[in-house]
Amino acid sequence: MTDDQPKSITAAAGSEHHRPTIRDVARLAGVSVGTASKALNANGKLKQETRDRVMTVARDIGYRPNDMAQSLHRTRSMTVGILSTDAFGRFTLPIFQALEEEFADRGIAIFMCNATDDPARERQHLDQLLGKRIDGLVVTGRRADKRPSVGPLPPNLPVIYVYAQSDDPEAVALLPDDEGGARLATAHLIALGRTRIAHISGPERFDAVQQRRRGYQSALAAAGLAEMPDFFVSGPWSEAWGREAVEQLYDGRAAPPDALFCGNDQIGRGAIDALRERGVSVPDQVAVIGFDNWAVMAEAARPPLSSIDMNLNALGHEAGRLLINMISGEKAHGIRRLPCTLVPRRSTIKESPR
Amino acid sequence: MTDDQPKSITAAAGSEHHRPTIRDVARLAGVSVGTASKALNANGKLKQETRDRVMTVARDIGYRPNDMAQSLHRTRSMTVGILSTDAFGRFTLPIFQALEEEFADRGIAIFMCNATDDPARERQHLDQLLGKRIDGLVVTGRRADKRPSVGPLPPNLPVIYVYAQSDDPEAVALLPDDEGGARLATAHLIALGRTRIAHISGPERFDAVQQRRRGYQSALAAAGLAEMPDFFVSGPWSEAWGREAVEQLYDGRAAPPDALFCGNDQIGRGAIDALRERGVSVPDQVAVIGFDNWAVMAEAARPPLSSIDMNLNALGHEAGRLLINMISGEKAHGIRRLPCTLVPRRSTIKESPR
Repeated sequence: MTDDQPKSITAAAGSEHHRPTIRDVARLAGVSVGTASKALNANGKLKQETRDRVMTVARDIGYRPNDMAQSLHRTRSMTVGILSTDAFGRFTLPIFQALEEEFADRGIAIFMCNATDDPARERQHLDQLLGKRIDGLVVTGRRADKRPSVGPLPPNLPVIYVYAQSDDPEAVALLPDDEGGARLATAHLIALGRTRIAHISGPERFDAVQQRRRGYQSALAAAGLAEMPDFFVSGPWSEAWGREAVEQLYDGRAAPPDALFCGNDQIGRGAIDALRERGVSVPDQVAVIGFDNWAVMAEAARPPLSSIDMNLNALGHEAGRLLINMISGEKAHGIRRLPCTLVPRRSTIKESPR
Repeated sequence: MTDDQPKSITAAAGSEHHRPTIRDVARLAGVSVGTASKALNANGKLKQETRDRVMTVARDIGYRPNDMAQSLHRTRSMTVGILSTDAFGRFTLPIFQALEEEFADRGIAIFMCNATDDPARERQHLDQLLGKRIDGLVVTGRRADKRPSVGPLPPNLPVIYVYAQSDDPEAVALLPDDEGGARLATAHLIALGRTRIAHISGPERFDAVQQRRRGYQSALAAAGLAEMPDFFVSGPWSEAWGREAVEQLYDGRAAPPDALFCGNDQIGRGAIDALRERGVSVPDQVAVIGFDNWAVMAEAARPPLSSIDMNLNALGHEAGRLLINMISGEKAHGIRRLPCTLVPRRSTIKESPR
């Protein structure tokens, strides 16, 4: 670039009688507006000489820093934050993977943060994410209770809770339809002709436990079946509890259950083991279904355990698409529950392929 | 800011007989060098008026775009990339968590990417990460085989493979000491007085399977024990294989094994179930130890399964610290293997607390 070029460029810009815009910078530097924006915002991949040329033109035509700052605000950072509030757990994996796919397909990078039960760490992460000027935020990872909303955040920052709930009823939250999933499981057992269906569930403080119990009760009611006394039992989310619950439900009972709807696959697997060891045939005498469709657990059961899939991968994809739409200006609020799916295996249907 | 200020500032800078630096910009704008850098690099959290003042000073004293670009290169972006090449699997979780803690403590944000068996997606992610000017890169998630190095990358970008290996022997890789872990497991069984120790492992194409077999053999040799013919068997990483392998090792054999070292906890659990169902007492007649210390699997076994912990969380912490040191200029190369730990439970020691 020679010494006299700046003057002629300034004259050219000045002749248009307006404050120079990023379009002027782009045109005079011989680059696209996108490239000019990248150079001015010091991001993106550019040759050094391109970056230099754009910066020189910008300075020379008097493209003002506050214009530059405004263009920063108009320009998306093409980054989103994912804040996990319950470590990187088994349930959040398929959600991460789906979010990652949705965002990567659109050239959006993900900042990943974790703040397990640590409000100070969470605040630190949020400050950092806001400093990086994220375009949107996903909060994921805790379902037992509604959590306080993250924040304070800029009012226009799109935020989605996935597999997590905020105590703000307006907050956008995507959750599996636990009640619907439980109805599916119970209706499946009813369709097989079972009438004495027990529900072995997890700890009652979990929102999912309450939702699933409602689904179980409503499926029984829809089929005109009475809920048996003592046929709902609650304990830890473990195989040991599944085994213990079978003792409770079968020891010395005249009319024991002919089917078990278990609150998760670990409980279901423990129940199957306990039934087998009591000489009870699954599914002939007792059909068993779990919840979660955790393949490594369900498939290793003998027989393999039928289950309910929460479709967490689909939930993650839906969340990713919704956040992108919200970043583009779509309004959204409140809780959305996505359907679960029945995955039959040989613990309920003898001739099942699985 | 009044009209005559720019001139006096220019004069002030000019009087020092040097090309203006970021320190001049900072001093004249009345901000720290860090704040000036943030404003010039258009990142970090700053008041708009501060950003404007810095940009105005920079332009007015003739702080040159290429100086600005150089300062970009001197300035860290305070971001690192994590590229997972094998989805978000169970083994990568504790590693992510540890990395996240190390980086968060130092105000470094993490870009998370996933590219499972998809070189085009991997290239796209790398371009995006480089466009974000990451300070360093962690590649994680595949152990079966050495993978081609990621790249091409800038020669000075620090890169660490964690729980993954590159085909470049100079590449920095952090791995668990599988051979040492297998020696621990086998020596534990020997210390309990067992002499007929079989090894039920995973698929032979896995590097970990070969490493662990070497550890098993070297522990036997160190104790002066002969390796029995047919006492090494290889199959899938599943409970079903554990059960099947027990049939192979015990059916019609005059002197069957008195201990089993299993290649993972799923195999170990299948083996325990099969032994119990044959009426063989664990650990009295046969002691069983697994590998991975996957709590949900090991603790649900009856009896609970002793195992080897790969300390993946510690591996992640070490990787995080090493990458930070490399970003600060420390040189590193080659493979480092971190020790595994024995976690005894009641499948080997009857009076074990677990």
